[in-house]
Amino acid sequence: MNASPYVSPSTGRRVKAVLFDTFGTVVDWRSGVADAVGPFLASHGAQVNPHAFADEWRAQYEPSMQPIRSGERSFTPLDVLHRENLERALEVAGIDASSVPHDELAHLTRAWERIGPWPDSVAGIRELGRRFIVGPLSNANTALLYSMAEYGQLPWSIILGADTTRAYKPSPDAYLSMAALLRLKPGEVMLAAAHNYDLAAAREAGLATGFILRAREFGEKQTTDLEPEQIWDVHAESITDLAAQMTGAGVV
Amino acid sequence: MNASPYVSPSTGRRVKAVLFDTFGTVVDWRSGVADAVGPFLASHGAQVNPHAFADEWRAQYEPSMQPIRSGERSFTPLDVLHRENLERALEVAGIDASSVPHDELAHLTRAWERIGPWPDSVAGIRELGRRFIVGPLSNANTALLYSMAEYGQLPWSIILGADTTRAYKPSPDAYLSMAALLRLKPGEVMLAAAHNYDLAAAREAGLATGFILRAREFGEKQTTDLEPEQIWDVHAESITDLAAQMTGAGVV
Repeated sequence: MNASPYVSPSTGRRVKAVLFDTFGTVVDWRSGVADAVGPFLASHGAQVNPHAFADEWRAQYEPSMQPIRSGERSFTPLDVLHRENLERALEVAGIDASSVPHDELAHLTRAWERIGPWPDSVAGIRELGRRFIVGPLSNANTALLYSMAEYGQLPWSIILGADTTRAYKPSPDAYLSMAALLRLKPGEVMLAAAHNYDLAAAREAGLATGFILRAREFGEKQTTDLEPEQIWDVHAESITDLAAQMTGAGVV
Repeated sequence: MNASPYVSPSTGRRVKAVLFDTFGTVVDWRSGVADAVGPFLASHGAQVNPHAFADEWRAQYEPSMQPIRSGERSFTPLDVLHRENLERALEVAGIDASSVPHDELAHLTRAWERIGPWPDSVAGIRELGRRFIVGPLSNANTALLYSMAEYGQLPWSIILGADTTRAYKPSPDAYLSMAALLRLKPGEVMLAAAHNYDLAAAREAGLATGFILRAREFGEKQTTDLEPEQIWDVHAESITDLAAQMTGAGVV
C-alpha cells in the first residue's frame, strides 16, 4: 500500500483506494439470484421465470432503502431488507411466504451472497490490489459481503459493509464515512461502479470515479448505463481494463 | 469458514470466530512504542527513558476512553485520542508539543501501528484462520488496525475497528455489535485476550473467552494478568498454544 497513488489526468485526484459497487459491477446478481431461486420456485410449483423473479425482488431494493436514507426508519442492514422484499416478490409469484419454512426463507434470502463474479472481476481486483487498497463500497452489510467474497474468491484487502457506516448510497455519508474509516481524504478514494447515478453521488461527495461498462447486468434488454453520462476519471470496459489503465500494466 | 465450530468443554459455546484484543495480546506495544519514540526523544534532548515514555503515554489510554463510554463525549477514534494523549506524555517529558512540527507529531502518533507482533502471533492466527474467522476486537480504529496488520503481516480474515461499532471495550456494545456485524450470535464469537477485565466483560456479554498469558506486556515488573482470574473457555500460553488447543493440531 506504499506504492504511488494513481493521478487522474482529468481531475488531478490522487487515488490510494479503489472501492467497488458490488451488485452489478463486481457480481452478476441477476444470473446468480435466478440460479438460486430456480429450484425453490419449481418445488413450490410457481409458474414464474427465475430471472423475472430476480428482477421483481431487485425492484424492491431501491425503494426499501429510501425510508432509511430519509431518516424515517433507523438503519436496517440489507439482509433484513432482502428478507422483507422477498415476501413481496413471493406474493407476486403467488407463493404464500407464511407457508414456507423459516429456514428455507432464510436460506433463500442469502441468495444474494451466492452469486458469482463477472469473468474479469477476480483478476482485475487482484491486479489493482497490488497498488491500491481494494474493497467493496456497497449497500450490502459486512457479513453478506464477507460471504460473497468467500463464494466468489474476491481478493479484497478490506471488507466494510454499509452497516459500518450506517448510511446507504447515494447518501453523501455513505462515501464520506467509508473514506474516513480508511483514514483517507475523499479524493484519495475512487468509486468504481457500473451505475452513473452512483458515480455522480460519489463525485458530488468528492471521490474519484471509475465507470465500468456492464451492458448485460439487467439482461439482454438493458437500456440503462450503456455509456458514461459524465466524463468520469476513468472509463473501462471491465475491471481488468480498469486495472490496466490504472496500473499501466497488462493483466493476464 | 464452513469448518465445524469449536465446542467449549466448559460452557458448550460453539465458536466460529476468534477475535483478538490487539495491544498486549497480539502486538508488543511497549517495545514497539519505545523503539518508535527513542529517536524522537533523543533529537529533542529529553532525558526520559523510551519505555517510561511509552508507559506514560499508555497510562492516558484507559482514562481517555472513559468519557466516551459514559456518553459525555461523542465517539472519537483512537487515532485522535492517541494524539491528544501524546501531548500530555510530551508535557511530562518536558517537551512543548507546540514546538514540534505538525507532521512530526502526526508521524509519532502512528507509533501505535508500527509495533510488531509477539513471536507466536502470526503463526497462531494463521493456524486458527484455517478453521475460524480471525480478526481484531480492539479499541483501535480500522485504519490503525489495517496499517498494524500490514506492518506485522497479521493474517486476519476481516478487520473491523472500534470506529465500526462506535463502542469501546469493556462496554457490552463493543462485543455485541461486533458479533452482529459478523452475523454471529455472541456465543459463536470468542474473545482472545491477555487481560482478565476484557474477558470478564466479553463473558458478561455472552461471548466465549480465551486467555493468553502475556507476562511481559508491561515489562519485567508486571504484576497484573499473570494468571486467569476465572475459568475461561480456554487458557493458553501463547496464540500458537490457543490454536493447538482449538484445532487439535500442532502448529509449526
